[in-house]
Amino acid sequence: MNIGFIGTGVMGKGMIGQLLSKGYEVCIHTRTKSKAESLIEAGAEWCNNVADLAEKSDTIITIVGYPYDVKQVYFEENGLLDNVREGMHLIDMTTSTPSLAEEIAKAASEKGAEALDAPVSGGDIGAREGKLSIMVGGSEQAFATVKPIFEAMGTNIVYQGQAGAGQHTKMCNQIAIASNMLGVAEAVVYAEKSGLSPENVLKSISTGAAGSWSLSNLAPRMIGGDFAPGFYIKHFVKDLRIAIEEADRMGLELPGLKLSESIYERLVELGYEDNGTQAVYNFYK
Amino acid sequence: MNIGFIGTGVMGKGMIGQLLSKGYEVCIHTRTKSKAESLIEAGAEWCNNVADLAEKSDTIITIVGYPYDVKQVYFEENGLLDNVREGMHLIDMTTSTPSLAEEIAKAASEKGAEALDAPVSGGDIGAREGKLSIMVGGSEQAFATVKPIFEAMGTNIVYQGQAGAGQHTKMCNQIAIASNMLGVAEAVVYAEKSGLSPENVLKSISTGAAGSWSLSNLAPRMIGGDFAPGFYIKHFVKDLRIAIEEADRMGLELPGLKLSESIYERLVELGYEDNGTQAVYNFYK
Repeated sequence: MNIGFIGTGVMGKGMIGQLLSKGYEVCIHTRTKSKAESLIEAGAEWCNNVADLAEKSDTIITIVGYPYDVKQVYFEENGLLDNVREGMHLIDMTTSTPSLAEEIAKAASEKGAEALDAPVSGGDIGAREGKLSIMVGGSEQAFATVKPIFEAMGTNIVYQGQAGAGQHTKMCNQIAIASNMLGVAEAVVYAEKSGLSPENVLKSISTGAAGSWSLSNLAPRMIGGDFAPGFYIKHFVKDLRIAIEEADRMGLELPGLKLSESIYERLVELGYEDNGTQAVYNFYK
Repeated sequence: MNIGFIGTGVMGKGMIGQLLSKGYEVCIHTRTKSKAESLIEAGAEWCNNVADLAEKSDTIITIVGYPYDVKQVYFEENGLLDNVREGMHLIDMTTSTPSLAEEIAKAASEKGAEALDAPVSGGDIGAREGKLSIMVGGSEQAFATVKPIFEAMGTNIVYQGQAGAGQHTKMCNQIAIASNMLGVAEAVVYAEKSGLSPENVLKSISTGAAGSWSLSNLAPRMIGGDFAPGFYIKHFVKDLRIAIEEADRMGLELPGLKLSESIYERLVELGYEDNGTQAVYNFYK
């Protein structure tokens, strides 16, 4: 099975590396060819445009920046939906909107193709090590067909339902993280302000009912002043905006999500958009 | 070493059971003798009043309900501080205010005794199994002296600093939990409202960056409609009020904590005070 891949950012690079290492032939296309050079050296084939990429592929994976970019890649003239053939599979792994996932699935099916939405969590390390969590929406049959491809990139692959369900699941993930990040940062600043050793506080609280991935992995970075991006604030804000729009559309009031989003918006205003999400700590300083 | 123990609620019962099983002689006193009967059968000695208890003990542990109860037990006429002898150790394991812990330590030291604040996490199961996390404030020497007693009740025992530091650490624990509970509940209600299977969503998100003790342990109870108390909402509200008071006193603005506290206050108004903290789910319904 030949795979076409669009998007060679930090996530895409790791995922393509995994696909190549597991014997897949991977064609790639990206707006800036220089970004793809290390992958071409590693064995990926370069395509000059989307038509060329589609010609050489049975399945095309996209992982780009924002819903706007997804829309462009799929719907622009000479984009994916202009070049898709009957029986092909299109998989968008960008974190994007559920409604756009539904639109793509509908448009693909009109061409006799199948689209899946399959956003991931696990970050650049998960991508590089093939240990992503992949949340999949679309037809169950299409999922069964491309599952081996997911298994080349991830370890926790769950079919979540019809088109859009993968994106909705990713929103659940971001919603759970959003409020927890406030709790983690507030626990750290309280510890510091009350004169405790925050490292010792983590020893007491990390393994019990307050324990979380963020407390174990990001609180130590807050304490150490390490705000380098694991996950960019600018991308997190994008995700939280999507979650709020979707919640509003469903008539759901989610005050924790709203508060977290407003604080992360404020961090963008303060110039922290290229920091990791743990830089929320600076909101409290 | 003879231990006196005041407070035979669900936590105290488990802790006394552990002390007895490890060979300590334990004298107990509580306002309602009937509550202590199972412990007397298990080998604890009953004392009719605090004076009697203090007479028979080298170290006295208290774990009662609210800071008001702590104040009464220690400062009322014929209370602990009227009966404490030189060289004794008083350990309050209630989650209470840091300032009250400091007051008790000062009053104890005026009598030549030592007081420690040592609140716990790990719930009734942790108490029953001797697997509590114990966060200790007070003099380091006093901590070293009574450490074997803590080791009979817990597995994660950390000295956090001077009097009040144990309570401050517990506040960090509750602050981290407070916002996370909103994230967990909001992820669950979003999953349900968007038509996903919340169980499948948990399979996708529990083990990654959204993962937490609450997501793994309390989200399934929310989904299953099980609101039985692991940790009572009425006690959580007490803790969050203390945390807010302390944060205000230090000039710290903690919006996640404030939001969570206001939502839990609302749940009390709605009649959920005797449910577990996972009943925050009902706020969204």
